[in-house]
Amino acid sequence: MSAARVEDGAAVEARVRGAFAAQGLVRLLGAELLAVAPGRVAIGLPFRSEFGQQDGFFHGGILATLGDDAAGFAALSLMPPDHRVLTVEFKINFLAPGLGERAIARGEVVRSGRTLTVARAEVAVVQRGSERPVALLLATMMSLPSAAPP
Amino acid sequence: MSAARVEDGAAVEARVRGAFAAQGLVRLLGAELLAVAPGRVAIGLPFRSEFGQQDGFFHGGILATLGDDAAGFAALSLMPPDHRVLTVEFKINFLAPGLGERAIARGEVVRSGRTLTVARAEVAVVQRGSERPVALLLATMMSLPSAAPP
Amino acid sequence: MSAARVEDGAAVEARVRGAFAAQGLVRLLGAELLAVAPGRVAIGLPFRSEFGQQDGFFHGGILATLGDDAAGFAALSLMPPDHRVLTVEFKINFLAPGLGERAIARGEVVRSGRTLTVARAEVAVVQRGSERPVALLLATMMSLPSAAPP
Amino acid sequence: MSAARVEDGAAVEARVRGAFAAQGLVRLLGAELLAVAPGRVAIGLPFRSEFGQQDGFFHGGILATLGDDAAGFAALSLMPPDHRVLTVEFKINFLAPGLGERAIARGEVVRSGRTLTVARAEVAVVQRGSERPVALLLATMMSLPSAAPP
Repeated sequence: MSAARVEDGAAVEARVRGAFAAQGLVRLLGAELLAVAPGRVAIGLPFRSEFGQQDGFFHGGILATLGDDAAGFAALSLMPPDHRVLTVEFKINFLAPGLGERAIARGEVVRSGRTLTVARAEVAVVQRGSERPVALLLATMMSLPSAAPP
Repeated sequence: MSAARVEDGAAVEARVRGAFAAQGLVRLLGAELLAVAPGRVAIGLPFRSEFGQQDGFFHGGILATLGDDAAGFAALSLMPPDHRVLTVEFKINFLAPGLGERAIARGEVVRSGRTLTVARAEVAVVQRGSERPVALLLATMMSLPSAAPP
Repeated sequence: MSAARVEDGAAVEARVRGAFAAQGLVRLLGAELLAVAPGRVAIGLPFRSEFGQQDGFFHGGILATLGDDAAGFAALSLMPPDHRVLTVEFKINFLAPGLGERAIARGEVVRSGRTLTVARAEVAVVQRGSERPVALLLATMMSLPSAAPP
Repeated sequence: MSAARVEDGAAVEARVRGAFAAQGLVRLLGAELLAVAPGRVAIGLPFRSEFGQQDGFFHGGILATLGDDAAGFAALSLMPPDHRVLTVEFKINFLAPGLGERAIARGEVVRSGRTLTVARAEVAVVQRGSERPVALLLATMMSLPSAAPP
């Protein structure tokens, strides 16, 4: 963690924004990185009809993707600069139908270890200006040297 | 389950195909329903660069979406005709990087109850004709009357 | 939820304490109900060498049992008086070795529905007066009429 | 994995039996190691009234403990001889009430990596000679050098 500690906030943010922008999926969906701080990341996604499941809400897979990303980039923000993050596993509980104009996933690190990081994310939807939580995610992330094979 | 039992295989397949086609996400991604049988569903998805995470493999969120769908539609296939399926929660373990031309998710019901169904899915990728598992998903699905509020 | 709402705090506590005391496992382990409030329950367990796994710490199964109970009784506290709680599933992440004289599990309800409740628990150990979190649990609980078959 | 590969089956079994016997919890509960093979372990536990939850069945925490152990020792059986196993996390779905004279947990490795192993376990109960599955567990295990701090 010493390497991360000497990085200043701006460097952490630039590093996370770079990894975020490199995701093809982000471009496909149109997700935005709303906020980055050490151990915390927020990601937003405006609703489009193609994100719907059969009932017209945000598909659970989209909410899971956002939550996974928010938790993963929160974990990455505390990893050494020359490392990347892999999701080992996650679990997600859906709390309410994802009906709204916009989804927001907020990820935070629960415990940061040398190899493994435990992180969680809350995914909310905003409907007519009012926000409510729709999913809760708990994940295990792994830190790998950028040069290592996946 | 009595309602499902009197449905023949063709009716089950037509019902699951209808629910699958109604998902906007399916059109966005280009996923195909490969096989439907009572309690079992397989879904395929050709790779596109927009599905990639930062390392150029299938993003975990895409694999999770496929697995969730395969498990959910497997559960739906055993539910009464006038019911729909909601994902209560799922957990997914990633086994290997999702590098390949195509992903396949195979879902199957583990235990089908009146209200809750436990289902699992294995997600594999096909690379140069050779298939290998990349993720394992275990989910809880809920049966709801189609007319009920979500 | 209306039934639970008209119950006063003392009635809720008496109901949860009754269900807790009825668990044979509680007597086997020596667990104590430390606190009960609507939607929140804390359970304590002094360490004994038989609780150890191969390295001499609290076995993960014991920590999971405590967390499951704390989450489950928190859920029960918001259910109607004539209902009981069943654990549908839970997931637990271990954060640090469970080394200490005493474990404490604090459960809280995240979302309470008519049939399903999402609850989480944090399990901590106390070592020489200092407490630290060792596990995080996220669970799905089900409400059943007491008279119904399990 | 090379170290494990040169170990013969008897050496693997002796190593797993030693780690199993070192668990205080095993003595508390009275669990038995029924079978050990590379990547597979079965554990049995006769019912005692103290294992019951409030309804008189095997407590979910006991079933989770058995499943965690079966998955963990299955993982250990494929690790190098000088390594020990830690549970990173697990998820368990309960399929049916754990009513019976005896529980059996069968663990198997799904994917064995250098640092992390994915393993699963099925827990069944035997009632009047008839066995049925009651829980399904999916876990992430970590390999650590025996000498390393936990």
